[in-house]
Amino acid sequence: MSFGSITIVGVGLMGGSLGLAVRSRGLADRVVGFGRDAGKLERARDLGAIDVAAATPEEAFAEADLAVICTPVPRIAADAIHALEHGGPGLAVTDVGSTKDRLVAELMRHPQARRRFIGAHPIAGSERSGVDHADAGLYAGAPCVLTPGPDADPDALRRVRRLWSDVGCVVREMSPRDHDGALALVSHLPHAVASALVLAIPPADAALAGGAYRDATRVAASDEDLWTGIFLDNREATLSALEALSTRLDQFRDMLARGDRSGLRDWIRAARQRRLDWAGAPRAGDPAHGRPIGAPPS
Amino acid sequence: MSFGSITIVGVGLMGGSLGLAVRSRGLADRVVGFGRDAGKLERARDLGAIDVAAATPEEAFAEADLAVICTPVPRIAADAIHALEHGGPGLAVTDVGSTKDRLVAELMRHPQARRRFIGAHPIAGSERSGVDHADAGLYAGAPCVLTPGPDADPDALRRVRRLWSDVGCVVREMSPRDHDGALALVSHLPHAVASALVLAIPPADAALAGGAYRDATRVAASDEDLWTGIFLDNREATLSALEALSTRLDQFRDMLARGDRSGLRDWIRAARQRRLDWAGAPRAGDPAHGRPIGAPPS
Repeated sequence: MSFGSITIVGVGLMGGSLGLAVRSRGLADRVVGFGRDAGKLERARDLGAIDVAAATPEEAFAEADLAVICTPVPRIAADAIHALEHGGPGLAVTDVGSTKDRLVAELMRHPQARRRFIGAHPIAGSERSGVDHADAGLYAGAPCVLTPGPDADPDALRRVRRLWSDVGCVVREMSPRDHDGALALVSHLPHAVASALVLAIPPADAALAGGAYRDATRVAASDEDLWTGIFLDNREATLSALEALSTRLDQFRDMLARGDRSGLRDWIRAARQRRLDWAGAPRAGDPAHGRPIGAPPS
Repeated sequence: MSFGSITIVGVGLMGGSLGLAVRSRGLADRVVGFGRDAGKLERARDLGAIDVAAATPEEAFAEADLAVICTPVPRIAADAIHALEHGGPGLAVTDVGSTKDRLVAELMRHPQARRRFIGAHPIAGSERSGVDHADAGLYAGAPCVLTPGPDADPDALRRVRRLWSDVGCVVREMSPRDHDGALALVSHLPHAVASALVLAIPPADAALAGGAYRDATRVAASDEDLWTGIFLDNREATLSALEALSTRLDQFRDMLARGDRSGLRDWIRAARQRRLDWAGAPRAGDPAHGRPIGAPPS
């Protein structure tokens, strides 16, 4: 056992998957769920994602070694402080929020959070939401970025690092700002583009769509409240990422408009090579990430 | 048996998969392969995609009931005419080309092709190429658009329709121009966007990428010669599709820049609903098309 008691605040897709992973791997004596919706907690317990649902903050945090905040980004800071206020002096707190800069800046102004909140972003998920779609393997092989502040308690950092590592993540540390800039490019931008593609294509045409459309638009089915929060929270970096994409689309459009065959070919080839390098990189991640959908496993 | 002898010109991913499908379903007495590269034909025969490799145009077409041109778009017209010139008076010819308007216009000026060439586009494929990635199930459930001209021979149309239907496609007819407009939106645009995304994201950031990047960029690994040909062949419709996307991305950027929370939420929600409707539509297609990668089959 790595841990005594772990409390998960918010038992949706991310929190529920974490509970399933901790319990199936035997990482804690006890997984406690806490949240605003008693029905969801009950469902999480029925599905085996938590051992017990806490009815009060005292039950949730007084004996916890580690609290993991899995609520939407706009609520994380308040939920983290709430946990620290009701927990013992040794409680470490982490989260799963997709943006970090504003959140960490806010929490670093709080005396306890400054030492015992260790921001985390396990880069895993699904366009689905809710504990019914939780998956014990969601975090296996996923990158997880930790954003500890300068005054982070070493023991809290050690425990948080161990949690994410033990559920299968490949853990690395970054500054909150670097994290948000990178995530704007690799996650927030593709989400915005997926929605824009769906809206640009009339449904009558989409009836002819094959795999390119299916994959390019998969994440457009994601929750609108979650993503509105992420985009607004990471506004500047997302605007920069949109600008970077726009530059590339303009290059393509200009070459196409003037019929520049060799320019188009070089441009497509450069993208192809970079994408193949990415898929083939000796890097932890979904083992299927380089495999075309529908193709037999190689 | 639906057919006596079928000749496949060009035994790459599309032609090889067609051969495997025809042979595994027992649709023809004989599948003949023809192409410029004897080594590729031999490989196709070794893999069971064709029964025999033809060494001359006479061997390839003299006894064929049906010829399927699976070469790159810029070569289809010449290869179709070549087949008709060496085939008997009853030979029907079809193809798998991703763009149709310019190709069909060219072939409709040829007296034999005008009657016996029936353009087809089975909307299936992969970012991989070559007969080694051929798959007998590639066409199963895929939409296939036929673009017969006004003087199409009814028997040729019947045979071509039967071929695509018998390998599992859901066949429909469209005008070449309508086909190209729809495909620019549902296929050519996502391909261009996938490449642009890859080029907009520095490899160091891409190391943090998860499923959103993986799926959004999958088709960026496609062959650059094939796609340069497709984009140039469908230039006007692709430019219009880029314009439609640009309008949507501008909407998003403007709402984000001014912090319009409810506008963003409505926009993301509209895309989400349309994508869910698409995935849930009672429509033939890849049975996995609505399922997130890595999730258990539902």
